[in-house]
Amino acid sequence: MAHCVTLDLGNLSADAVGEHGLDAAALDGIRRRAAELRERLNAERDQGMHAYLRLPGSADVLEGVLRVAHPRLGHYCHLVLLGIGGSALGLRMLADALAPAAPGPVHLHVVDNTDPALFARVLARVDLRETLFVVVSKSGGTLEVVAALGFFAERLRREGLPLADHVVAVTDPERGPLRAFAREHDLDCAEIPPAVGGRFSVLSAAGLLPAALLHLDPAALLRGAERAVKLCTSGPAEEDWPALLGLSAVELCRRGKTGLVFMPYSSRLRGLAEWFVQLWDESLGKDGAGQTAIPAVGATDQHAQLQLILEGPNDKVIVMARVERHEPEYALGDFEWQDFGAAFIKGRKLGEVINAQQQGTANALTARARPNATLKLRGVDAETLGELILGLEVATTYAGWAFGVNAYDQPAVELGKRMTREMLGG
Amino acid sequence: MAHCVTLDLGNLSADAVGEHGLDAAALDGIRRRAAELRERLNAERDQGMHAYLRLPGSADVLEGVLRVAHPRLGHYCHLVLLGIGGSALGLRMLADALAPAAPGPVHLHVVDNTDPALFARVLARVDLRETLFVVVSKSGGTLEVVAALGFFAERLRREGLPLADHVVAVTDPERGPLRAFAREHDLDCAEIPPAVGGRFSVLSAAGLLPAALLHLDPAALLRGAERAVKLCTSGPAEEDWPALLGLSAVELCRRGKTGLVFMPYSSRLRGLAEWFVQLWDESLGKDGAGQTAIPAVGATDQHAQLQLILEGPNDKVIVMARVERHEPEYALGDFEWQDFGAAFIKGRKLGEVINAQQQGTANALTARARPNATLKLRGVDAETLGELILGLEVATTYAGWAFGVNAYDQPAVELGKRMTREMLGG
Repeated sequence: MAHCVTLDLGNLSADAVGEHGLDAAALDGIRRRAAELRERLNAERDQGMHAYLRLPGSADVLEGVLRVAHPRLGHYCHLVLLGIGGSALGLRMLADALAPAAPGPVHLHVVDNTDPALFARVLARVDLRETLFVVVSKSGGTLEVVAALGFFAERLRREGLPLADHVVAVTDPERGPLRAFAREHDLDCAEIPPAVGGRFSVLSAAGLLPAALLHLDPAALLRGAERAVKLCTSGPAEEDWPALLGLSAVELCRRGKTGLVFMPYSSRLRGLAEWFVQLWDESLGKDGAGQTAIPAVGATDQHAQLQLILEGPNDKVIVMARVERHEPEYALGDFEWQDFGAAFIKGRKLGEVINAQQQGTANALTARARPNATLKLRGVDAETLGELILGLEVATTYAGWAFGVNAYDQPAVELGKRMTREMLGG
Repeated sequence: MAHCVTLDLGNLSADAVGEHGLDAAALDGIRRRAAELRERLNAERDQGMHAYLRLPGSADVLEGVLRVAHPRLGHYCHLVLLGIGGSALGLRMLADALAPAAPGPVHLHVVDNTDPALFARVLARVDLRETLFVVVSKSGGTLEVVAALGFFAERLRREGLPLADHVVAVTDPERGPLRAFAREHDLDCAEIPPAVGGRFSVLSAAGLLPAALLHLDPAALLRGAERAVKLCTSGPAEEDWPALLGLSAVELCRRGKTGLVFMPYSSRLRGLAEWFVQLWDESLGKDGAGQTAIPAVGATDQHAQLQLILEGPNDKVIVMARVERHEPEYALGDFEWQDFGAAFIKGRKLGEVINAQQQGTANALTARARPNATLKLRGVDAETLGELILGLEVATTYAGWAFGVNAYDQPAVELGKRMTREMLGG
């Protein structure tokens, strides 16, 4: 089975970066631990844990999504997503990466904040008659999402537009106030399986329903993800990059690399970096443990963050991603290149240039003893992205084990919520 | 003089957060040091250093911008910015914050990468006949910008569109290949003063020319910035928040707060957070010193990063910003709020909700002994933003002094560039 994603971990080793890297004994330990934890992953999965692993293989997920999406395609030109955290970052990632270069038939607007300026923007840009709202909240009671739903529901009612024609919900299959509201108002619904947490939910209807409504390809995403599930549960140990990445990152964190820069060399993967930040931070940051994920985009952020990364404190591991096949691709044609001291890029393809920049940065990082790794992606397509997403989720599960924390809860988020309620007298 | 920006530093103190904060002796030391360094700032400014401080008071800046922008307003509906790092992040910040809710007459596209997908996006969305390219590069030889210029210049020539009608440049007043190219092709030009570095250049033509072409208000930005210059050079010491912020952040960094989360509670200030990351990281990250800036947006990232910030390693200082007057503003009207357990938000304004979230987060951070500070902004308007930008630049100057580094160079960026050239055989 040819994979769309591989990981080059060579520059994490002491051979490459000296005392800042992992020596042979540490690497051996990680490989042994990965093999043991593979057993644990499989055993616990069979007991119903790590529920996100079951999303790709479940026919229900795709059916549930297509059942709601299919009759609506072609009927709306604006999709307004009401969601926050895992209910927004996943879709943003998919849309950033997979939307075609030309504007598609459906315009996406994301309401992921209680900022009135964001509401003003949506009101100024959509015609409610041609708009579908997709409300995503697993608990069904997320304050920001409820505020947005109440606000836009009132607008729809005021214009005499039936809620059931303009709102669909993605939430728990049975419980919570959004499910009850949907029942009462006869809203069409898709579900987030109860055992799948928000930040692991992008490959459920939470991400895939709005993706399908944007004419993206949920089946291909799931196909890629299923391949990653196979790799992580029964593939060759030496190819199991999610396990190796998760364990290596935590081992390096223990040795002082308290930050993890996630830096895909692709403007379309900015949303991936932001999605990863939530996945990594919220899963691992508890009980005093955790590693701070820092989003970056190459080559762009070579002109923003690279100075610090190369010459500031040596307290980070850098995970880059490079795209092996760029599509579309353009060659640089005739121009006065020599006048700019850039004769060497004449006739080069842009994809070659950005990949050379990635390789150049990997070399510079290594020369400065900054441990770094490179994910190699076949392309920026739905299947590759699905494989990558699932793999990064598995890496997070392994990292949670290595830190000894529960990767699936987020107790502190409740504290902020409670304090907000107190401020508002709620 | 009423300021648009103030800073509440109370929660950085040991009184608020115990041993994780600054005790009375440390705070005294910072105040004393701020007063001494004020003298240094004024003396060095008189010698021509810290050139960004002279941008707001210089009539040349605004004149240079308006001279180029004015005759072009109304003649283009697409503005394509070719720039990277400081030549793109500043304009993005201004456009994010100040663009009106409804789409304006000019659409902005930013080419800040060598990713062919980004080029495809621009080609699919603009009509070259109605497009103005603004090429921004201080040195005039930035590889990414030269590649983009060469690419689009060839397209313009192929369509028989004169470069001088469709391209303007912002670069050094005399030197560099972009200046020479502009002369040769009779391109209109605005300038970045030689002594102003890229990440301090947003209030020069680098940011203000494209801002003016987007119908934003450069004069108001400069007015706000001039107010901050006055504050920092001759205002009351106790109100000099840039000095206090810069010195406090570095003192906390010395005590283990190696990260600085910059978290405005406003979706329109996402670009501000990203601009700040470059300013802070690239100015301070050298000689092993530096503090890692981490971008966040409230309330959105309460559902992504707050878990780590509250319960992960206590290794960050959090700088929030809150908007005192939201405009436009909306009240939450009739809805089944009680069914969602949210009766307490009925009748509330959205701006009240987001500000309560900010205050709730400040309280939660303090309760968990995480040092935090809050910038209070009059609104999200050009004058406030100008004052804030200049103030954060001055804070960076102070932080550079406190770290003992040169805040205005970026030696390591050259290493990545050289390695890229080597990869491409250049």
